[in-house]
Amino acid sequence: MSKFTFALVAGASAAVGAVATAAVFGSRRQQESNLPPAPTSAPPLPTRTSPQYPSPFPQDGPGHPSIPPVDPSGLFQYGFPGPISDLRTTPSLTSSFNRTTRNPNWSAEHITPLSLTISHGDRRHSVFTEDPSIPVKFRAKLADYFRSGYDRGHQVPAADAKWSQEAMDATFALSNMCPQVGEGFNRDYWAHFEDFVRRLTSFYPSVRVVTGPLYLPKRDPVDSKWKVTYEVIGHPPNIAVPTHFYKIIYAEDGKVGGNVSLGAFVLPNDRIPNDKPLQDFEVPVEALERASGLEFVGLLDERRRKKLCQEISCSVIVKQYAERQKTFQTPNQPPPVKGQVPATTLTQR
Amino acid sequence: MSKFTFALVAGASAAVGAVATAAVFGSRRQQESNLPPAPTSAPPLPTRTSPQYPSPFPQDGPGHPSIPPVDPSGLFQYGFPGPISDLRTTPSLTSSFNRTTRNPNWSAEHITPLSLTISHGDRRHSVFTEDPSIPVKFRAKLADYFRSGYDRGHQVPAADAKWSQEAMDATFALSNMCPQVGEGFNRDYWAHFEDFVRRLTSFYPSVRVVTGPLYLPKRDPVDSKWKVTYEVIGHPPNIAVPTHFYKIIYAEDGKVGGNVSLGAFVLPNDRIPNDKPLQDFEVPVEALERASGLEFVGLLDERRRKKLCQEISCSVIVKQYAERQKTFQTPNQPPPVKGQVPATTLTQR
Repeated sequence: MSKFTFALVAGASAAVGAVATAAVFGSRRQQESNLPPAPTSAPPLPTRTSPQYPSPFPQDGPGHPSIPPVDPSGLFQYGFPGPISDLRTTPSLTSSFNRTTRNPNWSAEHITPLSLTISHGDRRHSVFTEDPSIPVKFRAKLADYFRSGYDRGHQVPAADAKWSQEAMDATFALSNMCPQVGEGFNRDYWAHFEDFVRRLTSFYPSVRVVTGPLYLPKRDPVDSKWKVTYEVIGHPPNIAVPTHFYKIIYAEDGKVGGNVSLGAFVLPNDRIPNDKPLQDFEVPVEALERASGLEFVGLLDERRRKKLCQEISCSVIVKQYAERQKTFQTPNQPPPVKGQVPATTLTQR
Repeated sequence: MSKFTFALVAGASAAVGAVATAAVFGSRRQQESNLPPAPTSAPPLPTRTSPQYPSPFPQDGPGHPSIPPVDPSGLFQYGFPGPISDLRTTPSLTSSFNRTTRNPNWSAEHITPLSLTISHGDRRHSVFTEDPSIPVKFRAKLADYFRSGYDRGHQVPAADAKWSQEAMDATFALSNMCPQVGEGFNRDYWAHFEDFVRRLTSFYPSVRVVTGPLYLPKRDPVDSKWKVTYEVIGHPPNIAVPTHFYKIIYAEDGKVGGNVSLGAFVLPNDRIPNDKPLQDFEVPVEALERASGLEFVGLLDERRRKKLCQEISCSVIVKQYAERQKTFQTPNQPPPVKGQVPATTLTQR
């Protein structure tokens, strides 16, 4: 077969595949209805059962179809249903959005001792913005949060992106936000937790953090069934209020293929007393993966994994808001180094 | 520049990009810790701030970083978090799985007058199976459904895939199942609804259906807030029990680029009286898209869209189980053709 002939055949096969199903239905339809006949100028098209298609199935007896009589993936002619996760990459964060909950699936950042010392961004110059990259019908709206009773809670914190105004602005998109309880959580314990993460840069030259929402079940005291219950805000109600938030921390030793100290934490979206030990919220990474449906360490060799809270003391330092703001302007206060405390087995928690 | 030189430069740039961050941290780490120095046999690596990288940012003044000091997407060296939607294509269904709820996102099928008359599959020869294509930690398990009080409810019905045993078997994977209320729903009204869909093939030469779960909010009578509440079954609790199910029906006229009669329905996962009109459950397609976070008609031209329930009577025929089984063996009873009933505006429902 010449190259030219081969190309013609290949082209014809592709075209036939695209319209063969329709052709079959077209002829049936004419038998069953009073529709006008199809234009006769078009050449007759082969049907799906014509012998020129190779069969993906064995011929398993007389009467058994050698070609599937249906084509479920033909749905995609009307568009792929999704879910689409709206990956967003910016200089200061990379995130994935959930169009059902209208919260991020996760929002990832990277901080270093250097990045936190550069201060060219000021949150007073940033404004909360809707994310135009997400289709309007799936987008979180500013109006949805208005008077909802919840803070627009940054997942990647603004204070981690003050190395440029543009970087900080990127954290103010609603695709980086979840509805968070304000007093006692977003403005308090959660903020102390974010401080803790920043202080890790005094011990590790590179820290990656992934933050996101969870919707966890609890046992109903009345019928003893496990149930997920969460509020939905907005007009109409469309933005889920997470029951919990997670952070997974990757504290890197800075060497190529070096060690990564991991800590996974799950906190309730609720007031948390300042004296609650942070380590009470530590969970095994696998438990977080099961709960979130995500995978965080799939490509990280077991031999490179260390346990963050065995290397440093996982505890928050409580500061009032004004004092916290001052800290942002000065070198970070490091977390205390852990002594020879017996190792905690994460899976026993 | 010769082709050879260019290739060398391109290769070197890519390699440098991959390890530059680590190199920076490596040198910092050595200043800050007592780690042994890096092997001296490796050539010195440029840092991220070396001038050979083109800057994506304008130089906006002294001290402002021309290169972002961080790399949020560097997270992906540890694996992409997901979500992964586990697209599954089989001869009888194409589906997408949700690793958080451990239910499908959607399950799509295609039926025709021909496909429903072929009867080479028997559900007595099919068994419910876990889906080995889904990682164990995200997979729905047979044990999770055991004694849960819920049916393993097919999204693409087994009876729509009796054209081959293999096709029918594919519908028995747990990735095509949701926990469904049995009596009064899965075994009754929902089954009548599935019958309705099959009967459409007497009027349309090709019918596509997408079926899936929803988790819809309702107003809490105590505090008037909108809340989503759903049960979670399994050991540990991990499979969501949907509050509702949807079907979107594409009844095709069989012509290339022809008309598609659309019907979208949302039914509660609950006992439904047999005398409840099916049309009470019809919803605008856009409402279903907003609720599910999915898009069903993105590529379907508005001019091709017709309204299914204006063309045929959208109503179920109640049959007892034995009678229903008998129907599967005989030609379908078509739904009644609608007379000149005034058109209903879907968006007013």
